[in-house]
Formats: sequence, C-alpha cells, structure tokens
Amino acid sequence: MSPTAAGTMRAVVCNSPGPTSVLRMQHIPLPIPVEGQVLVKVLGFGINRAEMYTRQGHSPGIEFPRILGIELVGEVAGYPSGSGAEPGDLPIGTRIATCMGGLGRQIPGSYAEYACPLKANISRIPQTSLPIATIAAMPEMFQTAYGSLVQALELKPGESILIRGATSSVGLTALQLARYLGAGRVAGSTRSGAREKMLRDYGADEVFIDDGNLAKHAPAQFDKVLELIGTKTLKDSIKCLRPKGMVCMTGIQGGEWTMDDFSPITDLAERRRLTGYSGDPKDFLALPWGELIRAVEKGEIKVPVREFRLDQLQEVHDTLEQGGGGQKMVVVI
Amino acid sequence: MSPTAAGTMRAVVCNSPGPTSVLRMQHIPLPIPVEGQVLVKVLGFGINRAEMYTRQGHSPGIEFPRILGIELVGEVAGYPSGSGAEPGDLPIGTRIATCMGGLGRQIPGSYAEYACPLKANISRIPQTSLPIATIAAMPEMFQTAYGSLVQALELKPGESILIRGATSSVGLTALQLARYLGAGRVAGSTRSGAREKMLRDYGADEVFIDDGNLAKHAPAQFDKVLELIGTKTLKDSIKCLRPKGMVCMTGIQGGEWTMDDFSPITDLAERRRLTGYSGDPKDFLALPWGELIRAVEKGEIKVPVREFRLDQLQEVHDTLEQGGGGQKMVVVI
Repeated sequence: MSPTAAGTMRAVVCNSPGPTSVLRMQHIPLPIPVEGQVLVKVLGFGINRAEMYTRQGHSPGIEFPRILGIELVGEVAGYPSGSGAEPGDLPIGTRIATCMGGLGRQIPGSYAEYACPLKANISRIPQTSLPIATIAAMPEMFQTAYGSLVQALELKPGESILIRGATSSVGLTALQLARYLGAGRVAGSTRSGAREKMLRDYGADEVFIDDGNLAKHAPAQFDKVLELIGTKTLKDSIKCLRPKGMVCMTGIQGGEWTMDDFSPITDLAERRRLTGYSGDPKDFLALPWGELIRAVEKGEIKVPVREFRLDQLQEVHDTLEQGGGGQKMVVVI
Repeated sequence: MSPTAAGTMRAVVCNSPGPTSVLRMQHIPLPIPVEGQVLVKVLGFGINRAEMYTRQGHSPGIEFPRILGIELVGEVAGYPSGSGAEPGDLPIGTRIATCMGGLGRQIPGSYAEYACPLKANISRIPQTSLPIATIAAMPEMFQTAYGSLVQALELKPGESILIRGATSSVGLTALQLARYLGAGRVAGSTRSGAREKMLRDYGADEVFIDDGNLAKHAPAQFDKVLELIGTKTLKDSIKCLRPKGMVCMTGIQGGEWTMDDFSPITDLAERRRLTGYSGDPKDFLALPWGELIRAVEKGEIKVPVREFRLDQLQEVHDTLEQGGGGQKMVVVI
C-alpha cells in the first residue's frame, strides 16, 4: 500500500500511556531517515507484549506520543538525503527484517506504513514463497526462542529440555526449534489439559500440566529449562534441572519478573545455573534466516500466526491484555 | 595422643546451641563405628564457619548435645566389629582425610580424639613431610576453593577471574589455585587497603579495594567471579562479568545469603550466569590430593594456617565470631 497522500502515511500512534483506546490511527508525515537509518516500507509486523507494557507506561525513558512496534518486515524504500551513493548491499526494494535497536522506543516504530530502523540492525530476508503474515511473525519470536536456546542455554544435540509455559507463540516456536536443533527429549508445560494436543502437535515428546509444582512430577530430570512464566515458577523450574543443568528465564507470562528470598547457594545447589534473556540485536543479526525459512517452507517448523489489519491494533492489544494465546499476532499492511 | 583412659577420649562437646562457652571439653566413651563407618584417630582438623552457625543453632535438623567438626585428617584405627576382614584398601594406620558426609552434623564430628566418618567419604592422603597443621587445613578449604573454581565455575586456562572477599582462607587458596590452574588474570578484592600486599603475596595480579561498587572500577571485565561475600555484593559482582561470564556464590562473609528484588532477566543480562556452591562430598573425593600436596610441598601453593590445641576451641570460635581473618584455624591433637 502506498502512502495515502503525497508525503504522508497511516500510523497508529500512542499519544500517551493508557488503555488500548489510546492507540489511534492518524495520517502523519512520512518519516525521514537520518544518518545510520534506512527508510523502509513496512509490509507487516508482529505484535509483542513489550509493546503492551510500553503502552501502559511501564517502559522507563519512552517519550509520548510514540509509534509503537519493535519489529517489522519490509522493503528498503530510501536513504538519508545527502548520504551520497545508495549502499550497495541494500538496494531499494530489498526485502528486510529488523527488530529491537530502539525501534518503537527511541525511534518511531513499526505500527505504520513506513519506518526508519537503524541500518546496523537490518537483516536481508531470503527469497521465499511464504506469505507476508508468516514472515512477519518470525523476527522477534524466532530471535527470542533461538537466542534463548542457542545463545543463552547453549542447547546441545541430545540434551533434554523443558519449555515452561509452552503455549505462547515463543513457547511453541521453542518446542519446534529445540527439536530442530536435535534435543534428545523435548517437554512442554501448560496449565490447561486442553492444550496438551497442541503442544504435541508442535513437537513436545511429553506434556506436563502445570500445577506450580512441576518438580514433583519431573525432579532433577532436565539438562535445560526455558522459563517463560517468570519468577512465579522459577524456583520450581530450577528443581527440574539435573545437577549442572541450566535454566534461562526469558518470559514473564505470569506477570512477575523479580524474586524475593532467593538463596543462590541453596536454590542453585548441585551447580545448577541461572541466566536470563531479553533479546539482543546481535543475536537477531546472527539468526540463520536462510535455514529457518527453508525449514518453515518445508513444514518442519510451523509458524503459529493470526493476521490483523493496521486499523485493528486496539483489538490486538485488547487480546494481549487478556493473555494473548498461542498464536503470534501480526499486522499485514 | 592416646585415649586418656581405657575406652574413653577427650572431646569438645556442644551441649546446646549458644555462645562460645557452650563448647566444653569432656571425657566420653570412644565412638564405635557402625556398618559403613571407620574408626579414625584424629590427628588434626580445620575449623569452619559452618560449625559456628551450627553452634549458634542456625543449622536445622541438628540434635544436641553434638560434637561439632565437619572435617579431619587422621589415621584409620578400627572397623565395625563383626564386619569380617578389614577392608584391604584402608589398613589400620592409613593416613586419611574426610569432610562433610554428615560429620559433625548427623555423625559425631572431629572436635575429638576419635571419630567415625563414613568410609565412602574418606580419601587417602599421600605420604608427605608437611606438618599435620598444614594437612589439616586442607580438606574443606581446598574442596571449597577447588570445587568452586573447577566444578562450579569451570575455570579454564587463560580466563580472567575475580575473587571477591579474597582475604579469607578460602579466598587466599582460591587466588593461588586460580593461578595454578592457569587463569590469565587473577584479581582479588578486600575492604582494607592494608591487605593489598597479602593478596599480591598469595598470587593476585590485581587488587581492588572493595567499596561495595566494584563494577565502577571493573565493569564487565571478568570471565568468572567467585563471590565469597554473599548476596550483599552479588548484584555488583554480576556487573563485573563479561557477557556470558559466570559468578559462583560460595561464601557469606557478609552474613547475608538471600536476595530480594532479584530480576534474572535484567540482573543476568547479556547471558551472564549465576550458580552457587556449598561443597559436595563427590568433589572432595575427586580432589587431586597427590598433585595438590606436591604443589604445597614445593611452595607453589601456600597454606595459610594458624594452629590451636583441642582445649582452645572456645577461643577459636570467639575468633570466628569476630570475623576469622585470613588464616585457616586448625587444631592439632
């Protein structure tokens, strides 16, 4: 879709922190890339809980009004004026993806027809027949799951892993990536027995119904645990680790991210290890896009996606507030 | 020294939890080894802060009266009656060391002329000309420092390490072991400038005067940190780690072992890792005693030791309560 009027575009602006109704479609001037940025025509983008927290006013240092949206897929549409020759490696029309690097925070975000991400945070996307909705679901979701498993947990072929809180889009992706990376035993947890089949469809060998005490069912069994619920369940997740096992806390589905009365010597006994993961632009750039897109094309990795239009972002945020659910919500423009 | 009367021995008994005056020398019957135990004539033993906490009543599940003392060096003196042939691998007179495995907790401890540790927790000690005081200082101190560096932190040659709270006996041993293991850069911290020379004498390349904010002086510089102060300084220690670095909390010199408001995702950003170490009988048995004793004989590793008699244990515990200081306190019998 082209700009709706010469030099303007549609964007969903968050004028001040507040409820979902603060998200309003506006016609605003096209953004102008400055040194280090690239003008990108947005084709689609995933929506993230981080954006809900920012909209609610929980992200320090964010100024309003602000266009939210920390990721996008799009096409290169321009460069800073006066920057001389167009960079040879990213010609106009190149299909790209980006996430983080200040997008939707210090830089106007992806809830718009155009955006100006940092060139340093852009990855080229290989040619693919996959629909935009599928590709748009991938950047943040894949970098979070892949970064947690590969960079933070250093998951090795043959190792066992528990994905705690596996029904989120990151959880479903992590189940599949763990299997794709050669994990020996992949388990997932959910609070709802009704979702067991979904987890098995997405690659879980084993499903635990999470009553808050998984260590009772699976004590000291896993080499690795990916904690997506948060600190509410973290101590219990640690007890599911084998000696020298490692847990990575990446998600806060349970809404709690800090812990009181934590005793490293006793809670991390038997050389169990704890780390955290919040994403990293370097990890995004290191994603093996070619390999991952081929795996999605072949159906080896399914992308759980639910598609919306730009004018439906209030509805998307309403859904986020109700918990989100298993599918990655994306906007296709 | 033989039993003071036929069938009896001297032991320092802790009759109930309380101040140092609860530690009283008594003449009591020789202990009788049961299945799985060995009767050992105690030659000497190191004294540990853990014993102070037990004496103060802070160790759950310990019954009084209790003979404290979680480690010893000694000579095999007998086996359970009716156990048939003496085990061939531990003849009477064999020089041995032991620590943990319930000694001084569920089993009467080493503050005595004889004790009955579990055979499964005993290590033979190589022949050596080192004085008993030196050998007696080694079991718990070396297993704590070696276990923290090798088992928990997996310190590799060439890596940089900070020992936080390096003036304790474990700290001084860790400085030297880190160097012995080939660490590329060994730093130690102390709150007192007057102790800088001591740390350098024990192998520190670099000494930080600890004002509680070491991350200001050494931000993101170390591959590994051994935290001996406790949770008081742990968050700051994490900030001294390079990305993907690991901190192991082993000590609680600062008296605090739990942490509030801990946020794994932000406090352990950049894939920094946290673990804890409280000693492990398996690690004690895996200690390379031959190698370590040769290194001590050659002066490559110095053992900081201060010698006492069995009748001075009140004084030793008084000193522990005042902070202990750099030398490992041992009793030689």
